[in-house]
Amino acid sequence: MTVTAPGGFVANGVACGIKGGGRPDLALVATDDGRAVPAAAVFTSNQAAAAPVQVSRRHLVATAGRAAAVVLNSGNANAATGAAGLHVSERTCDLVAASLGCRREEVLVCSTGLIGIPLPVDPIGAGVGDLVAGLDAEGGTRAADAILTTDTRRKEVVVRGDGWAIAGMAKGAAMLAPDMATMLAVLTTDAEVEPGPLQAALAAATAASFNRMTVDGATSTNDAVILLASGRAGPPAREPFAAALTDACASLALQMAADAEGATKLVRVRVRGAHTDAQAVAAARKVAESQLVKCSLYGRDPYWGRVVSELGSAGVEFDVDFVSIAYGGVVVCRDGVACGHDARALAAHMAGREIDLDADLGLGEGTAEIVTADLTHAYVDENMTTS
Amino acid sequence: MTVTAPGGFVANGVACGIKGGGRPDLALVATDDGRAVPAAAVFTSNQAAAAPVQVSRRHLVATAGRAAAVVLNSGNANAATGAAGLHVSERTCDLVAASLGCRREEVLVCSTGLIGIPLPVDPIGAGVGDLVAGLDAEGGTRAADAILTTDTRRKEVVVRGDGWAIAGMAKGAAMLAPDMATMLAVLTTDAEVEPGPLQAALAAATAASFNRMTVDGATSTNDAVILLASGRAGPPAREPFAAALTDACASLALQMAADAEGATKLVRVRVRGAHTDAQAVAAARKVAESQLVKCSLYGRDPYWGRVVSELGSAGVEFDVDFVSIAYGGVVVCRDGVACGHDARALAAHMAGREIDLDADLGLGEGTAEIVTADLTHAYVDENMTTS
Repeated sequence: MTVTAPGGFVANGVACGIKGGGRPDLALVATDDGRAVPAAAVFTSNQAAAAPVQVSRRHLVATAGRAAAVVLNSGNANAATGAAGLHVSERTCDLVAASLGCRREEVLVCSTGLIGIPLPVDPIGAGVGDLVAGLDAEGGTRAADAILTTDTRRKEVVVRGDGWAIAGMAKGAAMLAPDMATMLAVLTTDAEVEPGPLQAALAAATAASFNRMTVDGATSTNDAVILLASGRAGPPAREPFAAALTDACASLALQMAADAEGATKLVRVRVRGAHTDAQAVAAARKVAESQLVKCSLYGRDPYWGRVVSELGSAGVEFDVDFVSIAYGGVVVCRDGVACGHDARALAAHMAGREIDLDADLGLGEGTAEIVTADLTHAYVDENMTTS
Repeated sequence: MTVTAPGGFVANGVACGIKGGGRPDLALVATDDGRAVPAAAVFTSNQAAAAPVQVSRRHLVATAGRAAAVVLNSGNANAATGAAGLHVSERTCDLVAASLGCRREEVLVCSTGLIGIPLPVDPIGAGVGDLVAGLDAEGGTRAADAILTTDTRRKEVVVRGDGWAIAGMAKGAAMLAPDMATMLAVLTTDAEVEPGPLQAALAAATAASFNRMTVDGATSTNDAVILLASGRAGPPAREPFAAALTDACASLALQMAADAEGATKLVRVRVRGAHTDAQAVAAARKVAESQLVKCSLYGRDPYWGRVVSELGSAGVEFDVDFVSIAYGGVVVCRDGVACGHDARALAAHMAGREIDLDADLGLGEGTAEIVTADLTHAYVDENMTTS
């Protein structure tokens, strides 16, 4: 279950002192021979993109979509850090490139943690020797540990195809919203795919997975999904590869929603019967981002009135007289009004860890699913202060 | 400080049994002679508009903008209640009209409380006799009490002009967002203004007050702002009247934000230097609706990195290198990066009940202010369950 499962990759994670307390905070995923391979990436749409996002974007352009390694630190986002921050990200790539024997532009860089605090380069300089020396094909789990912040669990996935595999690791527990890959994820594959098709496949997989997940409607400054393709297993069939990549991304997205800060519920908001798929997405997102709906879910309260209210203000075609709402398949609202239902089955579903919230707008064929979490006391606790 | 302060109005509030426990839940504001006067109203933009909103809209059309009374109940929103709900709202107007001796269409109706639960007409029928019998010019406070739900305080205002006055009462503590008057408010004036100009003045005042306030980004099914003009004081000068009406609405909006569910802070998010005023509004709203920013404010943490991140994903023109952010006038971020500041003054401001959060985008002349509250444990408590 690690990012090094596909042939041709090594990884490692160490504690270099950014976080303090001996906690792992520096990770590296690299090709096992230090050569650049086809790479694809999707970055945050946030206009306050962090220094590592800006640097990684430039590097991918400079190499026409090839990379030999991805270096990631946790504990500091290196965002809103100005020219000094850009210098630190470039210098981090320099240090890794020198150790690996590749070019600076062949190294991509990611950071996650607090925004607005200068990231010192010294701990990275001190740690990069051990980081590179310890690279091996079993190091994926160490890397997956070193990128976590408020996450309580590693997020890893391996999907196997016909002779090839796709694997990935991710982090993300808050400042998570479905708009261009709102977290960090590094994926690898030994399938042989050129940069162009690789980018197209990653963009499509991201749109159907990470971008359909929201914890709190906040699109981070540092989001990045990066995919490296070693080519060791030869060319894959196009459609199975695309499907496997989407499966891998969807698994990581679900793991993030399930580990959302303070969450007690993993919630699938599904809308059908919308005029179009796009309107279904907008409606599902409005419900999934509703503080009031999320509080109800925390309290195990199937208060569908709040769902109707969110649907009615989602800016999509809507007629309350055609709406049905169900929790766990138990229909509680039909044609826009309360209806008799099995209260016992409903209570049992609301008490579970996973909640299915289905809304049928009754208008057309549009469908969408957004994965989210509940809003809890513990979310407030985790986000009250940064200290 | 009551809605009956302007000449020509009477009011009352009673407990009719919708809420139970003897708590007041039925209010009436009426002209003192039962005659219809010019009336204006702004209703929710939510497409799942509640029955009372639909009925009040029809009545105002039928009378070409005149009304003799507004009847309001708390404890049940009469929303998502279908044809039966419409019948209850019409019947409520019938009962009041019969007691007052006016036409059904001259009565407007508002409801607030839980969505999706049938509103029984019997308690209203039983209570309307006492409600009308107890109408008097000192009854505004009783009416203001009877419309509250989770509010902890009455919201009232009186603004005096040149021989005329504007007064109002309101309720609202959650499901509050700045999109077409997200709460209930009844305003009265003894100024003489015809329905057309009255509607224009109310729409403008609402846009600049209620619609610049958000508690949780949720636009309710029942929002209504209604203004009745008795004309007893004769015609006002146009601009002072418009300004006084905006002041009255702004006061009620501030009172609502200050009494937001579970809130410990009243927060003014001010954006300047945006490309346009509309972009300033969008940016301020994105910050004001951010769960993460609101949690920081609860924790007294001036974590401006979250503000930058929200500004960067607000969909407005933005360059992080030109951004400054201040809390209570203490600049903590200049040109997009952290800057030295008076930590003591900053901590003192963050500990206060009222927080000023100023962001300067450094691009143009656009400005906006959105009033909001923090996100607290108590908000989660209040909204976990409806029982």
